Amino acid sequence: MSQFVAEFMGTFFLILIGNGVVANVVLKDTKGFNSGWIVITAGWAFAVFTGVVISAPYSGAHINPAVTIGLAIAGEFSWALVPKFILAQMLGAMAGSFLVWIMYKDHFNRTEDPLLKRAAFCTTPAIKSPFSNIISEVIGTFTLIFVIFYVTDPVMGGDTETPIGMGSLGAIPVTFLVWAIGLALGGTTGYAINPARDLGPRIIYSLIPQKKKGSSDWSYAWIPVVAPLAGAGLAALVFLYLSS
Amino acid sequence: MSQFVAEFMGTFFLILIGNGVVANVVLKDTKGFNSGWIVITAGWAFAVFTGVVISAPYSGAHINPAVTIGLAIAGEFSWALVPKFILAQMLGAMAGSFLVWIMYKDHFNRTEDPLLKRAAFCTTPAIKSPFSNIISEVIGTFTLIFVIFYVTDPVMGGDTETPIGMGSLGAIPVTFLVWAIGLALGGTTGYAINPARDLGPRIIYSLIPQKKKGSSDWSYAWIPVVAPLAGAGLAALVFLYLSS
Amino acid sequence: MSQFVAEFMGTFFLILIGNGVVANVVLKDTKGFNSGWIVITAGWAFAVFTGVVISAPYSGAHINPAVTIGLAIAGEFSWALVPKFILAQMLGAMAGSFLVWIMYKDHFNRTEDPLLKRAAFCTTPAIKSPFSNIISEVIGTFTLIFVIFYVTDPVMGGDTETPIGMGSLGAIPVTFLVWAIGLALGGTTGYAINPARDLGPRIIYSLIPQKKKGSSDWSYAWIPVVAPLAGAGLAALVFLYLSS
Amino acid sequence: MSQFVAEFMGTFFLILIGNGVVANVVLKDTKGFNSGWIVITAGWAFAVFTGVVISAPYSGAHINPAVTIGLAIAGEFSWALVPKFILAQMLGAMAGSFLVWIMYKDHFNRTEDPLLKRAAFCTTPAIKSPFSNIISEVIGTFTLIFVIFYVTDPVMGGDTETPIGMGSLGAIPVTFLVWAIGLALGGTTGYAINPARDLGPRIIYSLIPQKKKGSSDWSYAWIPVVAPLAGAGLAALVFLYLSS
Repeated sequence: MSQFVAEFMGTFFLILIGNGVVANVVLKDTKGFNSGWIVITAGWAFAVFTGVVISAPYSGAHINPAVTIGLAIAGEFSWALVPKFILAQMLGAMAGSFLVWIMYKDHFNRTEDPLLKRAAFCTTPAIKSPFSNIISEVIGTFTLIFVIFYVTDPVMGGDTETPIGMGSLGAIPVTFLVWAIGLALGGTTGYAINPARDLGPRIIYSLIPQKKKGSSDWSYAWIPVVAPLAGAGLAALVFLYLSS
Repeated sequence: MSQFVAEFMGTFFLILIGNGVVANVVLKDTKGFNSGWIVITAGWAFAVFTGVVISAPYSGAHINPAVTIGLAIAGEFSWALVPKFILAQMLGAMAGSFLVWIMYKDHFNRTEDPLLKRAAFCTTPAIKSPFSNIISEVIGTFTLIFVIFYVTDPVMGGDTETPIGMGSLGAIPVTFLVWAIGLALGGTTGYAINPARDLGPRIIYSLIPQKKKGSSDWSYAWIPVVAPLAGAGLAALVFLYLSS
Repeated sequence: MSQFVAEFMGTFFLILIGNGVVANVVLKDTKGFNSGWIVITAGWAFAVFTGVVISAPYSGAHINPAVTIGLAIAGEFSWALVPKFILAQMLGAMAGSFLVWIMYKDHFNRTEDPLLKRAAFCTTPAIKSPFSNIISEVIGTFTLIFVIFYVTDPVMGGDTETPIGMGSLGAIPVTFLVWAIGLALGGTTGYAINPARDLGPRIIYSLIPQKKKGSSDWSYAWIPVVAPLAGAGLAALVFLYLSS
Repeated sequence: MSQFVAEFMGTFFLILIGNGVVANVVLKDTKGFNSGWIVITAGWAFAVFTGVVISAPYSGAHINPAVTIGLAIAGEFSWALVPKFILAQMLGAMAGSFLVWIMYKDHFNRTEDPLLKRAAFCTTPAIKSPFSNIISEVIGTFTLIFVIFYVTDPVMGGDTETPIGMGSLGAIPVTFLVWAIGLALGGTTGYAINPARDLGPRIIYSLIPQKKKGSSDWSYAWIPVVAPLAGAGLAALVFLYLSS
């Protein structure tokens, strides 16, 4: 796969599975209806696992503009590639979200509450409060990006100091990290921590027809875009400072 | 173990544990009664883990006709072996399902609802709608097979580029992948994503005696056979296209 | 650690954590009260993880007479060591169970139902039916022992075909296997699948003083001893047959 | 990172995520409200994972004074470094706890019960009983420290007996161990098992303003400090005895 296709496919599976688990938990008459926060957070964690497994050997598995920009600020990724990566992530997120809508369409049709239906696309804060919501998304994304800087590969000891790449098992640390963030830091805004994850599906939501469709809440939409980027930038700066 | 025995045993444990967890959750007076979607999906994930650990060194751990045919279409498995593998998978699934029935018999006897009793054998869609149900099974199986193509083994760096086989830990990626699929894409049809998983136990269900036994729902039975194969074929074609 | 101490400590932690999670879920006013089957089965899985990590380098981490005897029947363990191992396992299980009682004593005192209090020591079948209960324990233990025979270590490829021991990560496969068994095959009898796990704590239960203490149910006690051994023997015989 | 910064950052993330998950489960109107013990224990387990990943290559990932002192007693860590490590851990815990308060402030404001609000800072025993509470914290911390002594890295077999460091995957054993302790041994006192984890956030709690603020319960505060240290000391002594 090319870098573009890898980022597209990785983010596609991230959102297909991530929004899929939300649809399964919030929409009416599904098999996982009302199965709770452990299901939501496990679903998003394994969504990241899947997206990383697909894309890691080809693009480095960013699948998140905050990762791409954070790495670029830290000097670990070329700014010239940033637009291509973000475009691929946005398109992948939109495709994944569209497919969740197709797949769960009968269940969307049976669900009354427009907020629940929108929840299977983009995030809504538990308590709307721009300042608090920004802080939440900054902290969540800071945690994600900062820890990623310190995830290390195995290393052989002795004379042959050649590193070992763990293959697909190497996706486990970021999986557990995202599970942690969801469990602990997702309780306020629903942890977008990824501009493509929120904006891409919100665009899809705004375009599709739906019975009793609610607002796309564009007044909130900038927060899960800007705050994750701010958190990523902060993480990169702290990383650079600590590494200098 | 021969390839035939390995596929038989792998699929046997897949269904023994997978249908076992459904029996535990839906049948009356069990210790896991009504314990929810996290239990169901964790059970199926670790069922896959178990089946893969048993069979991987001997048959490559297909334990699913959709995997076998997907690999064959992609040119990574010999068509000549396909009938043998599928036969072993079907027989293994039937044996596993039969043993779940024996083991949980007292609990089957206490359960009134025929649909719940059948759920411990084969899948039933949450909302019957052939077109939507086919789409769900295609998407679920596409995800399974496509990602499997990209699961990679660890590789040593440096001069000695010799791959390392992870042994039984190598079963973890597909375990987390199946957990992801169950959590996110299982909410509509109950994620058969494996023709042997559904058809084998459905045949057993149609043969056993049972108080207040319900229909075997043969009108639905073709969907969890045909749609997973279509999803696997689609995954193989996309993989071939992206690899060309 | 000597083999004896390793088996003692491994089984001690197995039961301290395993019976601890049952106490946490069933006894009154605990923080984990009524937290369900996912908590019970995760607790026992990580109990096995802990016991295996402690004992693997010193004794091979049997921590279960069914494992010891299964390996002996398969010719992979010396019969001469069997009595020593089983004695260590029994004493470790009794010590772990005793400590759970000490630790949760205030909560035992507040719990009315004698069956719930006994559940934090030994297993009780959901439906008493000797024949079915034996079958359940045979199937559960067969699964445990048979799959353990096929758990493999990582192997380096290329010229240097020297195996790699995974250290403590090598305890993950049996952890996931026991999680699978609990989720799927624990719904009938509560999956003793280990004679020391049931008999050791039952002896402790019969000896301790307790308000409103119930029967030790000795009429059932032979089943979680004999049936796991039968399951282990069956697993060893099938393994020998398939390997011949 | 220096050792000091590594211990600070590791403990900061431990408490940010650990106290974050408690806030998410106990405070009003959060997305994870009332999601139960599996969420609490998974959150703390992955909190440990995150803290260990960050700090392991720089400080050895103690992030807990009980680990630091246990290793020192066992002769595996220099007493001269103990004060620096404990200071970093205390400051990191206080910073993490402060940030949880900032992040969940709107939810603290909506929560009536002062005990629930305090639960997002420090531990409260389910049944107050100093002797029992001490025993619980001693057992929990003994389990943590004793098992850590026996966690082993992978080792290559054959001629080249050079150990392999697992990189971030090496944080998995202690993650599963802490999950085990939470599930099984956390039911009585809420498993502080770490003096910095309890005392640091309790100091923060005593300093912040809060509507309907409750007592900081200083009469209990010494137990989650002293008992974990006693448990760690006991673990070190048993380890030394078994290793001699």
